[in-house]
Amino acid sequence: MSTGHTGSRSAVVHIENGDAPGPFLIVCEHASNHIPPAYGTLGLDGAARKAHIAWDPGALGVARRLAQNLDAPLVHAGVSRLVYDLNRPPSSAGAMTRQSESYVIPGNQTLTPEARQKRTSEICLPFHDALHAEIARRMAIGTPPVLVTIHSFTPVWFGKPRAVEFGIIHDADPTLAKAVLAEAKARTGLDCRLNEPYSAADEVTHTLRLHATPYGLKSVMLEVRNDLIADPVAETAMADGLTPVLSAALRACTQEVAA
Amino acid sequence: MSTGHTGSRSAVVHIENGDAPGPFLIVCEHASNHIPPAYGTLGLDGAARKAHIAWDPGALGVARRLAQNLDAPLVHAGVSRLVYDLNRPPSSAGAMTRQSESYVIPGNQTLTPEARQKRTSEICLPFHDALHAEIARRMAIGTPPVLVTIHSFTPVWFGKPRAVEFGIIHDADPTLAKAVLAEAKARTGLDCRLNEPYSAADEVTHTLRLHATPYGLKSVMLEVRNDLIADPVAETAMADGLTPVLSAALRACTQEVAA
Repeated sequence: MSTGHTGSRSAVVHIENGDAPGPFLIVCEHASNHIPPAYGTLGLDGAARKAHIAWDPGALGVARRLAQNLDAPLVHAGVSRLVYDLNRPPSSAGAMTRQSESYVIPGNQTLTPEARQKRTSEICLPFHDALHAEIARRMAIGTPPVLVTIHSFTPVWFGKPRAVEFGIIHDADPTLAKAVLAEAKARTGLDCRLNEPYSAADEVTHTLRLHATPYGLKSVMLEVRNDLIADPVAETAMADGLTPVLSAALRACTQEVAA
Repeated sequence: MSTGHTGSRSAVVHIENGDAPGPFLIVCEHASNHIPPAYGTLGLDGAARKAHIAWDPGALGVARRLAQNLDAPLVHAGVSRLVYDLNRPPSSAGAMTRQSESYVIPGNQTLTPEARQKRTSEICLPFHDALHAEIARRMAIGTPPVLVTIHSFTPVWFGKPRAVEFGIIHDADPTLAKAVLAEAKARTGLDCRLNEPYSAADEVTHTLRLHATPYGLKSVMLEVRNDLIADPVAETAMADGLTPVLSAALRACTQEVAA
């Protein structure tokens, strides 16, 4: 298990199972609610810094177990999305958001151009460069990875409960997402929906758009409702349930192409 | 004139005018026929290493003058396309080609997976990371660049003369390319053609696909027949002729959106 690619970027990006030979590459952009000391608290109290606005609770646990089960590399971030949301382009207001749901982020209200560039250079680029390196090295030897990003979402949004439990989201190519939807419906008891609670139109497929779509890689973004992965036991159970879903979905896509 | 981003990557990527505030960002992937000593001669004689298969003769001169005229940053490569073609994905046979036109490349005949990964890590990634950084830093402050890649092509291909003098090639979004075609026809005496002598179907729009299309940046790939830019005077004259073409084309696109 190589973790040789983290190096000086360890605060921003972590790579686990870097040499794992499985077909998938797992990505978790919102793995951590860590705010590096240089950014203080962004003006938020401790509760806000632990809330779903700061990260995707449970996502890293699910991603790690999936990576283990699927013998896949895992690329995950070490910085809160409130400092820089790695699943948004640097031009987006949402990359360094001033408000998330009902929380105002004081430390993001008056960012200078220099501050926006600094966060982009210090957080966005090391993360996406490291992810690109993993992908490019695999492509170079004829084993292009299948990109799977792991997210979680809050069961209540602006006071309204969400019924969806497992959201499956695609960028330009829906092939893998549709296969995952079919397998998840067949193999799990989850309320599974395509392009819910978000879709590409909401700008949430940035990582897929940047890394999978240009290379024609199969890809999918998975969103798990975070009340279903609220502790390590639940995270493991969810990942163990999704493992055969992903494997079967990939087989289905591959057979389709071969047929 | 900032060259502050080259650093240890100087052999692979060079950035000129890094802080220039113009709307364009000029890229020249095939600027150099330099083969780093570690790669020897790739088994080629001196004539082959100077031929169009090794680089795009004249392209860097045109790109430099355009960057100067347009107050634009210029990102150009310092390594021959025969070692790694930066306008091809790492999965492509053409990234480390075994044959180019009628030239066989002995040093590329039996590349191990490790050798392909090494070239990808040492050449592809530093170049594209540096280009991505330039783009991302500009996007972060709300001034997304317009990407223009500068290439040249040989007047004779497999013994057949080519009539086209100025080729204008697009990836997914044809807007800027069509505007450049219209302005070039109106403002130059060149034989101008859209998607000739190559098009996206030939896999030549990799840089646009990787850097412009995912971000929705306006972009175009320009191909100049190399007999028209065979010395520094001709390069300068070509660039001076194309400068108002690019400016007018961008204005036309912008007005279209505003209208």
